[in-house]
Amino acid sequence: MRPHLSAAARRRAALLPVLPLLLAGRLAFAQGAEPVDMTAISKIRAEAFEHSQVMTMMSWLTDVHGPRLTGSPITRRAADYTVQQMQSWGLSNPRIEPWGTFGRGWVNEKFYAQVTSPVPFAVIGYPQAWTPGTNGLVKSAIVYVRIDSDADFEKYRGKLAGKVVMLAPMREVAPRFEPLAARRSEADLAKLEAAPLPAPAAMGPRASAPRTAADSAAMRQQEAMRATQATAVRRMAFIADENVAAVIEPGRGDGGTVFTNNGQSRDPKTPYGTPLIVVAIEHYGRMLRTVEKGVPVEMELDVRNRFYDDDLTSFNIIAEIPGTDPKLKDEVVMLGAHFDSWHAGTGATDNAAGSAAMLEAMRVLKASGLKPKRTIRIALWTGEEQGLLGSRAYVRQQFGTRDSLTDAGKKVSVYFNLDNGTGAIRGVFQQGNTEAGPIFKAWMKPFDDKGVKAATLSNTGGTDHLAFDGIGIPGFQFIQDEVEYGTRTHHSNMDTYERVQDADMKLNAAVIASFVYHAANRPALFPRKPAAIAPRS
Amino acid sequence: MRPHLSAAARRRAALLPVLPLLLAGRLAFAQGAEPVDMTAISKIRAEAFEHSQVMTMMSWLTDVHGPRLTGSPITRRAADYTVQQMQSWGLSNPRIEPWGTFGRGWVNEKFYAQVTSPVPFAVIGYPQAWTPGTNGLVKSAIVYVRIDSDADFEKYRGKLAGKVVMLAPMREVAPRFEPLAARRSEADLAKLEAAPLPAPAAMGPRASAPRTAADSAAMRQQEAMRATQATAVRRMAFIADENVAAVIEPGRGDGGTVFTNNGQSRDPKTPYGTPLIVVAIEHYGRMLRTVEKGVPVEMELDVRNRFYDDDLTSFNIIAEIPGTDPKLKDEVVMLGAHFDSWHAGTGATDNAAGSAAMLEAMRVLKASGLKPKRTIRIALWTGEEQGLLGSRAYVRQQFGTRDSLTDAGKKVSVYFNLDNGTGAIRGVFQQGNTEAGPIFKAWMKPFDDKGVKAATLSNTGGTDHLAFDGIGIPGFQFIQDEVEYGTRTHHSNMDTYERVQDADMKLNAAVIASFVYHAANRPALFPRKPAAIAPRS
Repeated sequence: MRPHLSAAARRRAALLPVLPLLLAGRLAFAQGAEPVDMTAISKIRAEAFEHSQVMTMMSWLTDVHGPRLTGSPITRRAADYTVQQMQSWGLSNPRIEPWGTFGRGWVNEKFYAQVTSPVPFAVIGYPQAWTPGTNGLVKSAIVYVRIDSDADFEKYRGKLAGKVVMLAPMREVAPRFEPLAARRSEADLAKLEAAPLPAPAAMGPRASAPRTAADSAAMRQQEAMRATQATAVRRMAFIADENVAAVIEPGRGDGGTVFTNNGQSRDPKTPYGTPLIVVAIEHYGRMLRTVEKGVPVEMELDVRNRFYDDDLTSFNIIAEIPGTDPKLKDEVVMLGAHFDSWHAGTGATDNAAGSAAMLEAMRVLKASGLKPKRTIRIALWTGEEQGLLGSRAYVRQQFGTRDSLTDAGKKVSVYFNLDNGTGAIRGVFQQGNTEAGPIFKAWMKPFDDKGVKAATLSNTGGTDHLAFDGIGIPGFQFIQDEVEYGTRTHHSNMDTYERVQDADMKLNAAVIASFVYHAANRPALFPRKPAAIAPRS
Repeated sequence: MRPHLSAAARRRAALLPVLPLLLAGRLAFAQGAEPVDMTAISKIRAEAFEHSQVMTMMSWLTDVHGPRLTGSPITRRAADYTVQQMQSWGLSNPRIEPWGTFGRGWVNEKFYAQVTSPVPFAVIGYPQAWTPGTNGLVKSAIVYVRIDSDADFEKYRGKLAGKVVMLAPMREVAPRFEPLAARRSEADLAKLEAAPLPAPAAMGPRASAPRTAADSAAMRQQEAMRATQATAVRRMAFIADENVAAVIEPGRGDGGTVFTNNGQSRDPKTPYGTPLIVVAIEHYGRMLRTVEKGVPVEMELDVRNRFYDDDLTSFNIIAEIPGTDPKLKDEVVMLGAHFDSWHAGTGATDNAAGSAAMLEAMRVLKASGLKPKRTIRIALWTGEEQGLLGSRAYVRQQFGTRDSLTDAGKKVSVYFNLDNGTGAIRGVFQQGNTEAGPIFKAWMKPFDDKGVKAATLSNTGGTDHLAFDGIGIPGFQFIQDEVEYGTRTHHSNMDTYERVQDADMKLNAAVIASFVYHAANRPALFPRKPAAIAPRS
């Protein structure tokens, strides 16, 4: 398809049933509809594959300046490092831009957990984010507290002060007969390419009434979750009232891999609450099974967490390569990724990998000496893990709303995002933008040798491209190989540099550099979705 | 094949090329050569599958009384628990039998390791066994010491006192594209069954000259290993002389799973040496990459290890079900497993699983009311991890040597061992005993529904059946599903109760109970290998 169809033709195209996209892509390529600059791609590939700095950046952003929990001073140091890097490459105006109030900063400064009786063993564990530490060294027998009904509260009232308690039963831990790591198969990519245009309802967050059986089931599930959460809240309030020393929780994951989460509000006006410690499931099981036998389990716990209340704001990191065409340089092509992470690992795949790939793409473009016609702008967001806070604030402040885009917003051509771990880019989610398919197909063709090929009409969510898509600016997230994202790294203590694959990182930087360069130099702005099928946010 | 061939016929059979064993087994079964008591098997299966106590024992032997490092007081408590259990089932004369001098006991009582700068994080780690703890709380910058030549020693002389050092470079950590867990396929079992009779040379440890290219390569590899070890010994002596606070080592394993080993002699006459701490590879990598950037890494380390020098002996655990046939009750069928473990996990698959399966087999036999003609004796060994010490001592003391078997030794029919984790029994290694095949085939037939079927002429080594096989008493180790033995559990911190599979444990107890019952009641002693092909130990 051509990029310059009339609005009516675009709307017709958008309403067509499933398109044979691969074929469409090939035709577009054969017709030369979407220009591809093979000389530029050669330069990009040479710089990205032969002079890569992406793994060096990865190590600095994780080993030295990780984890990057939003609001923590470590994250600020990581940002300072990033700005210095961008300065050293000659990017224009690299800067840290505050986007608004986030809340308290939080850092786990010390973690010591040791069962001392009946048999000593060190416990692998992590505090949940924004929970307080212990009041110095705690020594306590572990109490397994089962509160399932009102009567249960009375059993424990007045008996838990200063104790370390467990609240949850043990869960099943199955052997790993499936590989932890996987790449997308050709069949999987073909399935993605065959996906139909998403229904408008599925694209907007405003749907208020259940429309399908699946919707109803989802709502019932949400209600059940809310009820469970309400009970949990009541139990936690009781636990806090009883001045429990700490709560030990069973972690998701196994084999020493522990997934953590948010444990308490980051709002400085809320009370600190109870120390929450998530431990390796094997250690949870061992403690619980021992206590259940009537054998006392004694432990020592010393957790020091520091809150930072002096500066409640957070920031995004921005820099540019200015456009060189006087008529087009006010138009902007953006690329970005969230810079923040959770706290138990070093936030390597989530999302130093995305940040480093975007940074490397900028470095590659600058080093290759290519001259983009439009301005290329990188934005690394914080607060993504708490709800796309940095990107949504930026977009609102700079580009307005769907119904009232600013002039700057009208001049943003397209935004590319990366946030699914180390995995090689294998394609792009079109977010229902039918005209994007042939363009992406043309741009991917020079990376076909690396398995970059799929364009799917499907949506994907959960990350910062939604901030753009939500106000009608084309925003895309790439299809990536899974590698170990879901099984091992996403929000775990083992999201570390070791999980990041050099070859994937180089490829991703090259693909992104090429995409943004081509977006910057194509004749027109990137086509926008017809309002009829755009998400409403 | 029949069990009562002449010695000459047996020798001929032993020298035959690869036997079509499956066929041989079927024929033997068809001819009814090896009696199988289906009523007994029904009783055994009912007790083992419907009234199992094996997982309860597993939890006590691991969660409460683990790890069971030989010589530690925890191991002694585990033995006391085991004797009590056997008493409660009515086994005869359950007892702890000292087998001789082992060395010091050792327990890790406290482990605290925390990087404090540039970014705080808790380090997953374990002391190597029999190494000393730190001298209280150590605070130190980490020094990466590279000693590859004589000149390198001088660079560091006088500079390392009180420091925490790293000696090893980082290794590769690959994603896990292969499953951690696997079961044996039909093809794998068929391959085992097709294995030829092992060559006599391969069966004896005394081969002194290289006989094949493979032998020569193996010897060169051994020499290279010895040279590397010599360098390592010299480096460690230097490190000890320099009064280093501790050495941090990279662990095998990943994702929080850490494999540990022996770090120092258990001989009370040797000096304590240097604290050796093996840490999660991700944490090793993070520290090393940071130090290599010139960024100082500060850490706190507080490791308390206790030595037990008051009793240097160790023991085996023995009990019996007396035979009921006056003519046969002096003959003995034995089953056993090593009871000891390494120290970083709880020794669940290595080898509480083997011990619990053997104990459960004894319980099942007793509870089922079956009357074995020969005496059935269980033996749970210690010191296996240090070289089959308990079983070799027992066999030497009770049964003599190959060239001079005691009367008791002549009356041992067969010994069955289990020491390959949780995995379901799928067959038996015949250790080159050709006559064993048809017998095992007949005994396995009633468990064919559970996938127990393969008899292989192959040897397997590395565990306590070798103590018996080495003096000419038939000693066998079962073929088991791998599950996660090699990848996750064997000598790791994650060898815990969670890794042990209920269904496998029940099956293994049932199969073993049936095997020993049939061995106890068959007309003749289990056939022995001809001397010509027996291993010489």
